[in-house]
Amino acid sequence: MSLVEDLQWRYATKKMNGQAVAQEKIDYIVEAARLAPTSSGLHPFRIIEISNPELKAKIQPVAYNQSQIVDASHLLVFAAYDEYTKERVDAVFAQQEVERGLPAGFANDYKNMLWGSFEKQSKDQHFQHAARQAYIGFGLAIAAAAELHIDATPMEGFVNDEVDALLGLDKLGLKSVTILALGYRDVENDWLVNMKKVRIPKEDFVINLS
Amino acid sequence: MSLVEDLQWRYATKKMNGQAVAQEKIDYIVEAARLAPTSSGLHPFRIIEISNPELKAKIQPVAYNQSQIVDASHLLVFAAYDEYTKERVDAVFAQQEVERGLPAGFANDYKNMLWGSFEKQSKDQHFQHAARQAYIGFGLAIAAAAELHIDATPMEGFVNDEVDALLGLDKLGLKSVTILALGYRDVENDWLVNMKKVRIPKEDFVINLS
Repeated sequence: MSLVEDLQWRYATKKMNGQAVAQEKIDYIVEAARLAPTSSGLHPFRIIEISNPELKAKIQPVAYNQSQIVDASHLLVFAAYDEYTKERVDAVFAQQEVERGLPAGFANDYKNMLWGSFEKQSKDQHFQHAARQAYIGFGLAIAAAAELHIDATPMEGFVNDEVDALLGLDKLGLKSVTILALGYRDVENDWLVNMKKVRIPKEDFVINLS
Repeated sequence: MSLVEDLQWRYATKKMNGQAVAQEKIDYIVEAARLAPTSSGLHPFRIIEISNPELKAKIQPVAYNQSQIVDASHLLVFAAYDEYTKERVDAVFAQQEVERGLPAGFANDYKNMLWGSFEKQSKDQHFQHAARQAYIGFGLAIAAAAELHIDATPMEGFVNDEVDALLGLDKLGLKSVTILALGYRDVENDWLVNMKKVRIPKEDFVINLS
């Protein structure tokens, strides 16, 4: 099946059946997010992978008691940098130089220009920018799950600060932005499973200026 | 090839060769973005499709003169709602009810709860939220281009306000957030084409709490 057919197959699963997803499939979905292109290659986000039932049960009340939190096999919490720091930016370019066999400092002009621009921004502007990059990875993880026909619920409905505290993300300089719940649909009990997928008609979605 | 293999194949093309991409392939990439899941199904973004050489030439100077802007076959400008309005939210739910054959007002409780939450937010918070949804579609368009082996450059490096003015987006209540340049790599002249793809090692990217 093509990506577009896979995207037609998928839907935001409202009720999952508790069945476990094989770890190699989870790894594949995470790998798609790891390969995401991000602004200047900064990749300012991480994935927190959770399958432990006790931990999922602790997250559920701060996620409006949604059933997918506990009925999913795995939760992938996408968390973005709370800010760009010089150390974080330096580390990305240093790694690029090493892996590409370039002399140290090869990208200094670009890096300094980039840092000069970040320096003028607030911590919140950094976070908003980092969060957008996380959503690119989120999109790719959604595509990968659809390709494997693993059901997935993209979730923003949770109290970010509470999830951050529960997972200790504040200590890591990360802030949760979204969750992808992965598992298998409960066909008997999911009100959305047989509903028509509704999207904006193409003629309204695309503004063709060519 | 699998999605992960396609993502390994792709890279942020720095020099394109001017060759045209067939319209059906552009349509396929746009379709992947149209099928993106978004918060509450609001789909608060649009794609502006541009292949006209004169228009691309006008965009180039407000995009730091990057060559891909004019050497790409097509530019897809992703633009998000500048804010959520009651009319926009109402229209989404009305369309859902019609297409799903549900009675008018079926989703009113949910819609009113959602609107109540938007009402407490600033216009900028609305836009930031809408922009994140656009990045999900952006991720899926990147995946679709990779699947077709169409080269793509994800670009944030442009002066958003200038692009908005040039394309008349302000009059449509939209703000540009990112551009996907689509075309074919110029293998002889792209400094990045043979560089190793660098990403965060999996052990640093994933925080496994299971």
